[in-house]
Amino acid sequence: MKPINHIEADENTKISELVKDMGKIGFGARKISIASEIYREMTNDKECKIFVGVAGAMVPGGMKKQIIKMLKNKNTACLVTTGANLTHDLIEALGEHHYIGDERADDAKLNEEGIDRIYNVFMKNSVYEKLEPFFEENWEEFKKCTNIREFINKIGELLVVDEEESILKYCYNHEIPIYCPAIADSGIGMMVWGRIVKGEKNKISIDAFDDMKEIIDQAWTAKKSGIIYVGGGVPKNFIQQSLQFSKDNGADYGIQISTDQPQWGGSSGAPLQEGISWGKMKEKAKFVNVYCDATIALPMIIA
Amino acid sequence: MKPINHIEADENTKISELVKDMGKIGFGARKISIASEIYREMTNDKECKIFVGVAGAMVPGGMKKQIIKMLKNKNTACLVTTGANLTHDLIEALGEHHYIGDERADDAKLNEEGIDRIYNVFMKNSVYEKLEPFFEENWEEFKKCTNIREFINKIGELLVVDEEESILKYCYNHEIPIYCPAIADSGIGMMVWGRIVKGEKNKISIDAFDDMKEIIDQAWTAKKSGIIYVGGGVPKNFIQQSLQFSKDNGADYGIQISTDQPQWGGSSGAPLQEGISWGKMKEKAKFVNVYCDATIALPMIIA
Amino acid sequence: MKPINHIEADENTKISELVKDMGKIGFGARKISIASEIYREMTNDKECKIFVGVAGAMVPGGMKKQIIKMLKNKNTACLVTTGANLTHDLIEALGEHHYIGDERADDAKLNEEGIDRIYNVFMKNSVYEKLEPFFEENWEEFKKCTNIREFINKIGELLVVDEEESILKYCYNHEIPIYCPAIADSGIGMMVWGRIVKGEKNKISIDAFDDMKEIIDQAWTAKKSGIIYVGGGVPKNFIQQSLQFSKDNGADYGIQISTDQPQWGGSSGAPLQEGISWGKMKEKAKFVNVYCDATIALPMIIA
Amino acid sequence: MKPINHIEADENTKISELVKDMGKIGFGARKISIASEIYREMTNDKECKIFVGVAGAMVPGGMKKQIIKMLKNKNTACLVTTGANLTHDLIEALGEHHYIGDERADDAKLNEEGIDRIYNVFMKNSVYEKLEPFFEENWEEFKKCTNIREFINKIGELLVVDEEESILKYCYNHEIPIYCPAIADSGIGMMVWGRIVKGEKNKISIDAFDDMKEIIDQAWTAKKSGIIYVGGGVPKNFIQQSLQFSKDNGADYGIQISTDQPQWGGSSGAPLQEGISWGKMKEKAKFVNVYCDATIALPMIIA
Repeated sequence: MKPINHIEADENTKISELVKDMGKIGFGARKISIASEIYREMTNDKECKIFVGVAGAMVPGGMKKQIIKMLKNKNTACLVTTGANLTHDLIEALGEHHYIGDERADDAKLNEEGIDRIYNVFMKNSVYEKLEPFFEENWEEFKKCTNIREFINKIGELLVVDEEESILKYCYNHEIPIYCPAIADSGIGMMVWGRIVKGEKNKISIDAFDDMKEIIDQAWTAKKSGIIYVGGGVPKNFIQQSLQFSKDNGADYGIQISTDQPQWGGSSGAPLQEGISWGKMKEKAKFVNVYCDATIALPMIIA
Repeated sequence: MKPINHIEADENTKISELVKDMGKIGFGARKISIASEIYREMTNDKECKIFVGVAGAMVPGGMKKQIIKMLKNKNTACLVTTGANLTHDLIEALGEHHYIGDERADDAKLNEEGIDRIYNVFMKNSVYEKLEPFFEENWEEFKKCTNIREFINKIGELLVVDEEESILKYCYNHEIPIYCPAIADSGIGMMVWGRIVKGEKNKISIDAFDDMKEIIDQAWTAKKSGIIYVGGGVPKNFIQQSLQFSKDNGADYGIQISTDQPQWGGSSGAPLQEGISWGKMKEKAKFVNVYCDATIALPMIIA
Repeated sequence: MKPINHIEADENTKISELVKDMGKIGFGARKISIASEIYREMTNDKECKIFVGVAGAMVPGGMKKQIIKMLKNKNTACLVTTGANLTHDLIEALGEHHYIGDERADDAKLNEEGIDRIYNVFMKNSVYEKLEPFFEENWEEFKKCTNIREFINKIGELLVVDEEESILKYCYNHEIPIYCPAIADSGIGMMVWGRIVKGEKNKISIDAFDDMKEIIDQAWTAKKSGIIYVGGGVPKNFIQQSLQFSKDNGADYGIQISTDQPQWGGSSGAPLQEGISWGKMKEKAKFVNVYCDATIALPMIIA
Repeated sequence: MKPINHIEADENTKISELVKDMGKIGFGARKISIASEIYREMTNDKECKIFVGVAGAMVPGGMKKQIIKMLKNKNTACLVTTGANLTHDLIEALGEHHYIGDERADDAKLNEEGIDRIYNVFMKNSVYEKLEPFFEENWEEFKKCTNIREFINKIGELLVVDEEESILKYCYNHEIPIYCPAIADSGIGMMVWGRIVKGEKNKISIDAFDDMKEIIDQAWTAKKSGIIYVGGGVPKNFIQQSLQFSKDNGADYGIQISTDQPQWGGSSGAPLQEGISWGKMKEKAKFVNVYCDATIALPMIIA
């Protein structure tokens, strides 16, 4: 047995050193360190394809560049995320911002001022005025798309923004597919709705199931697979179900960063080991559940 | 100020009496009682349309009949739920079961035995053998559907089961639309995938955005609106975004049953009051956030 | 394997029926039902001595009568609780009240109005004006006490109140020892401080360690032991450490109602099984961890 | 409004830089940054006396040196902690260790092997064999103590260990009082019990209330006061009640690191703002509630 070695960090300690030292103590800190080790291993394993799932309002939360950094690994298979994260990424790519806010603000007053609150982050409701023309002007282009991945890819293509500033652009430039089964459930969905309610001439046909062929194919053909889940929800679950078709029954590496708990029975809170029963995770896989706010844990793990 | 009146329940106390008494004490119990009052009020308000959102594995958890009971209110507008809940409902409607399990079971052993674990509930992996022929045999019927609501409605139509035993059947019989933006992310999605990978002849075109027209129209035309969220995720968020188009800026009644917390910034944990800033909830609305396992809270609230 | 049997409760269902039915479903509801079974078993086991630990602000929360009900079992060994719960019990026994409050109240305004907030429960700061004379007038009596149990017992003796209305009185009348290691950390502690700062003539000698002899003796001599923890903290831990001296290494029955989680490493969130490693819980013991707000779970379990 | 500035850390980023950047994003990360700012401010405010409360198993968790670092501030008033933390500090000071463990270990097997589990940290049960002679040999010294602070101080005095390796030694050397109202509830308590059960000759008289005079005096005489709570429980509450006697109604600075939540009504989960109603926190105080595992948050905040 190895003794606990108390943390001795100071202001000049590098993150990588702190995270390494966290591996020598107990409780949640050690999970951060284990996650960091697994992250290093899976990103260096050339046979491994990494499936990244990101739920939660990570872009408003300030994690956009961390997500891009995560996608830069050469063996990234895909990103599965929520329509909300893509909408917020698009909003920033179009020159708008999210703002430092206060969770104790008066919501009725914010509403009068045209400010939407996401816990302690604010957003101007007027951002939609930038989204509208982007879709309106490019609608003929969007109409050519037939599935969700293509549609999202098209957004990335049309954006004029530095790839370091937009997940959508980065993924477009580097041919990383973005899957988003519930795309209708988002500001982007609202923009599509805003067009299609105007009648036949704006009709668009985006298939709800078609992307499954691609992600399951990616899971099926990967020699090894790794998963990184930031939050749960649809992004996690969509990857999990695809992994049932992976080689030898499930992923080889797994990192889950979540604040949700197992005992409520939901998929978001289910620890990765539950996936072993389903054949979504190998019994011998290297995996860890990190119970921490992702805005704190993510920069430490991938640094 | 009204004094706290200590609970004096015994085994013969009726649930309705206990819940009433819970309104006279503190902490979480009072929230159950308030939710029950709001539930009574919104279901009796003839001008109000109720939008029900159900995430989490509520069918495996044993809440199927409670959900059906909730939908029986005459002013139910729609049900928004996950593909998982619909798949589990379908599994039971086809004669299969979920089972009493143990969260401390050995997942590797369960995997060998063909048993999938959902916390302390088990399901045989062989259920998919019943799903396959259901979709295979009825595929020509399904191919006629053009959006997700129609597709789900068709499942309900084709099922031969008592409506008290299936959410899908009940909603079909009573013309309650079921919306499920992330339908691809589920066992039902897998069944569709199993057909479409076999080539052109099995092609199906289910539009990803089309249902938005209907649910937003429902929000737009309702004189008043009420929301009931069991868990968060896509079901909650899809209703929330539609409510931005509701009369006078947001819902009039709201009940949220969740174990998630505000401070992580996600939509699932956001308290209903945050919706006031977005115009998804009226400032003067009657609403409550119940922090409790839904398998405990739901039967008490709707009893 | 037994199939999940969906809950079918209505307003006339008795609590005992609902709780029984909860045993046939999944997730947290089943834990309530298991807890209720274990409760029945341990209270009927004549060889078993029950150690009850109550943390949290259960008296302000409205659980006073539930706690008394729990203590009425003939095989109750003792109650271990916080000074806060005893102070709040005393406050009510002296004719004061706790009140229905609102967690979103303006705390600065409440402070001006002399109201103390405990989440959604209010208490007048003036209650201390009733406590002061109670201790002042009876100080000579209190000075005779030499350990914490005696001191608390003396409060119960001096109170003129129906035993159904006060934990302190009930325990005094029925010779149930109350242990409270951190008694100084409470309003009662403040009252003692208010006397002893006035100098030598008010001196009192209450030993900090003496009660250990009694509770460890109770654990040592019990043929079997059962534990009921409402919350964690000192009450749980004080019983846990005493159980290390129990017959054959630990308790035979255990119920823990808590909302805290294991992964933070604290004693409050530790599941009962962790106690097996310490010899505080038998490997073959019947025990359950209920993850629920105690104001909801407690009345259901003991009904 | 200031825009969210996405985090761009890499492995060479210093902790202090990361924490600074966390102040420019949302959710939990920003709380870490705010806490770090408040920490700097309160430790530099010469008029301020800092009351440190530490619950949870922070010594087994690997936070011993972080706690010592926190106590090194010249304006530290006192440390209030649990008997468990002091026992674990003493165990290490006597040359024993805590070990890297696994939360999924078989507790029954651990029990056979004489290993106690604290989530993912192990401790040999044989450590008590080192504690026994320490108290036995020094018992005459301990018998001279009359209150809990003196008793704990005596442990620090008698220890032969580098002050950087022991909270008890550091506090003794630097005359920082340690208060521990529930000292009986700990391994140290067990050692006292082990002596006093042997009869009159080992009698010791440690007063349960006496320390209140000192801590309330410290609160009363401080020009300004600051609080740092790692976890809740008795340490937090004991400081909170003393602050009711502080100048102008409550603390001027506050940091709370906790994973507990407000809605259960307990003191541990109560956000610092609730203290404003009680006069334990000034309305204009600078304070923050950090919702994070302390083993992760603490090194970042005080670095």
